Amino acid sequence: MSARVYGVGTSAFGRQPETSAAELGWQAVIEAVTDAALEPGGGPDAVYVGSVLGAPGVAQRTLHSLGIVGVPVIAVENACASGTTAYHEAVAAVELGRYRTVLALGVEQLSTLYGAGAILPEPSDPEGRAGLTQPAHYALTASRYLAQGRVRPEELAAVAVKSSRYAVHNPRAQHRREIDLDRVLGSRMIADPLTVLQCCSISDGAAAAVIGPDRGVDRDVPVLASVLTSGALWDYRDEEVPAFGSIRATSQEAYRRARVGIDDVDVVELHDAFTIGEIVGMEALGLAPRGGAGALTAAGETGPGGSRPVNPSGGLLARGHPLGATGLAQIAEIVWQLRGEAGGRQVDGARIGLVETMGGGVSGIDANACVITLLGSR
Amino acid sequence: MSARVYGVGTSAFGRQPETSAAELGWQAVIEAVTDAALEPGGGPDAVYVGSVLGAPGVAQRTLHSLGIVGVPVIAVENACASGTTAYHEAVAAVELGRYRTVLALGVEQLSTLYGAGAILPEPSDPEGRAGLTQPAHYALTASRYLAQGRVRPEELAAVAVKSSRYAVHNPRAQHRREIDLDRVLGSRMIADPLTVLQCCSISDGAAAAVIGPDRGVDRDVPVLASVLTSGALWDYRDEEVPAFGSIRATSQEAYRRARVGIDDVDVVELHDAFTIGEIVGMEALGLAPRGGAGALTAAGETGPGGSRPVNPSGGLLARGHPLGATGLAQIAEIVWQLRGEAGGRQVDGARIGLVETMGGGVSGIDANACVITLLGSR
Repeated sequence: MSARVYGVGTSAFGRQPETSAAELGWQAVIEAVTDAALEPGGGPDAVYVGSVLGAPGVAQRTLHSLGIVGVPVIAVENACASGTTAYHEAVAAVELGRYRTVLALGVEQLSTLYGAGAILPEPSDPEGRAGLTQPAHYALTASRYLAQGRVRPEELAAVAVKSSRYAVHNPRAQHRREIDLDRVLGSRMIADPLTVLQCCSISDGAAAAVIGPDRGVDRDVPVLASVLTSGALWDYRDEEVPAFGSIRATSQEAYRRARVGIDDVDVVELHDAFTIGEIVGMEALGLAPRGGAGALTAAGETGPGGSRPVNPSGGLLARGHPLGATGLAQIAEIVWQLRGEAGGRQVDGARIGLVETMGGGVSGIDANACVITLLGSR
Repeated sequence: MSARVYGVGTSAFGRQPETSAAELGWQAVIEAVTDAALEPGGGPDAVYVGSVLGAPGVAQRTLHSLGIVGVPVIAVENACASGTTAYHEAVAAVELGRYRTVLALGVEQLSTLYGAGAILPEPSDPEGRAGLTQPAHYALTASRYLAQGRVRPEELAAVAVKSSRYAVHNPRAQHRREIDLDRVLGSRMIADPLTVLQCCSISDGAAAAVIGPDRGVDRDVPVLASVLTSGALWDYRDEEVPAFGSIRATSQEAYRRARVGIDDVDVVELHDAFTIGEIVGMEALGLAPRGGAGALTAAGETGPGGSRPVNPSGGLLARGHPLGATGLAQIAEIVWQLRGEAGGRQVDGARIGLVETMGGGVSGIDANACVITLLGSR
């Protein structure tokens, strides 16, 4: 049975410590359930909730306040891919006929946990013992690309500039001010070569999607494929940087199952936790040839009006990256794009969209999880 | 496709702060995979990992060290029912033909988080604002039973005495010393009427099971039914205490699907986080009539040699309750019992076993989740 997205919803994104995780979740769920226009008694029949650092029970607290009680609720965690993992499990449940209508919710409140600065790795990990935070981890990847001449500093910074140009049209984005190259390159250094404007911020938010089988409603968005892979091994002798191999393999499998190629994809939401993440993701997905993502970005092709729109929501950098919510925020953006409901950031004539989310990457594993889904109509 | 448990494994249980969560997980997985005697290349094809307070990525770290890489890994959380939630998702995946062989792992290390004392509720919950910890929550339930004359203090304490008599025969149990009624009743008061020996301890541990379709191996244990329900609403006007309704409804559905009655069940592992939990669980499952569980326990019927064996592993009270690991530790015990491999605590001729796990219970919801599974051969 093929799955469709009936409806999506999100909260606003940004630091909002005064709003509880349950309230954020409520905002996303009420919008998604309303958008899905479920018949009375039409579900959801089960709920998957993605959250990374949320307290146990956050899912039930949220759903309780909505009167969604007495159905199976399962919280899932796959680091930054937790939201898309919830979506992936919901899609699988519908495709297999396990449940009819399933709600996928992602929710995260980081600002009450981390007032400022990076989320620290576990001291029990080799990375943790070395102080290798996520910014440092991505900085090593960026350094390798720079050393190989595969990207230039200005091209890295151009990712943040481009995303800021989209985000001014996203009223729910965390950062809604256009920034220029000088500002990005001149901002405070976090982990060389990544300046602060090349790193995602501490953010709070929630996003949700209602998924079910084809019910004959044109507005519903077909799921062409959803693929989840976990952690291939990686070490420094690999030809490519961490994450590249996972994204490459996962996307190839998704294209095969959906029977589409990257050139059929009109709009992409990918995992740009740091500017280098977008460059690596673009090349691994096949949006740009090896070493070509930076030039494509600097030429404006991934930005407003360009030929290869990437992260029209503003992405993790500008829309925000509340870990467990991110994947479903990406799904929501693609659904809005495919329905032509994306306002000032609308990609004209978008018919097929792609979401890519990476989770983690610890102890020599390429990724805790990579989830890639294709949505739309061929 | 019906599912079977091919193999199970656990770590030892107790405070072991010097052993990392990944190492505990490794001990359980290596035993379960060996016990399952998988053919080379025979899987697992996917992994579900239950953990409540584990750091993101604990699953991948554990599996990485075993060379289980490149298959989907999904962490699930459902409070104290996280381990059985992982099992439930694994069983469903096999039954639906989504994956062939699936590993379910539960792992938790509490001693490095909580040196002593209870795990505190979230200050964002109504319970949290009231200081209503889990011991206090269960104490209210116990007080109601006492006030109604539905149980006597000595009968509550008899649960702990009984479980200690089993646990002396479980070399992996956290507490392996037989205790008597006077000692239980005279121990330090935690939340009236629950003394410290009526409360589970801070514990570390892991447990795992390998699940797949019928492969014609007699030693494999059939899954007759697995049912997961989430949080019905509860308030003080309900005739029964919190958890009772969830356990009752979930078990009725499990009996229906498995086509067995409680009288067909030879051995039970149930969620005795506190002595009163076992009393409530017994009555909700139908092991004893309303108001009859205490007398049955005091008469020795649930203990060694009794007619209604409950928690032969020692249960959460004596074997230990490392949250995410508990459900799979219960599964492991039932598998050992049904195979006749339970040593000095073996229930003679056990053919059908039941596991019941309760997770959470916050903000007026009866339970985050209740999972009940029936295993064995009719």
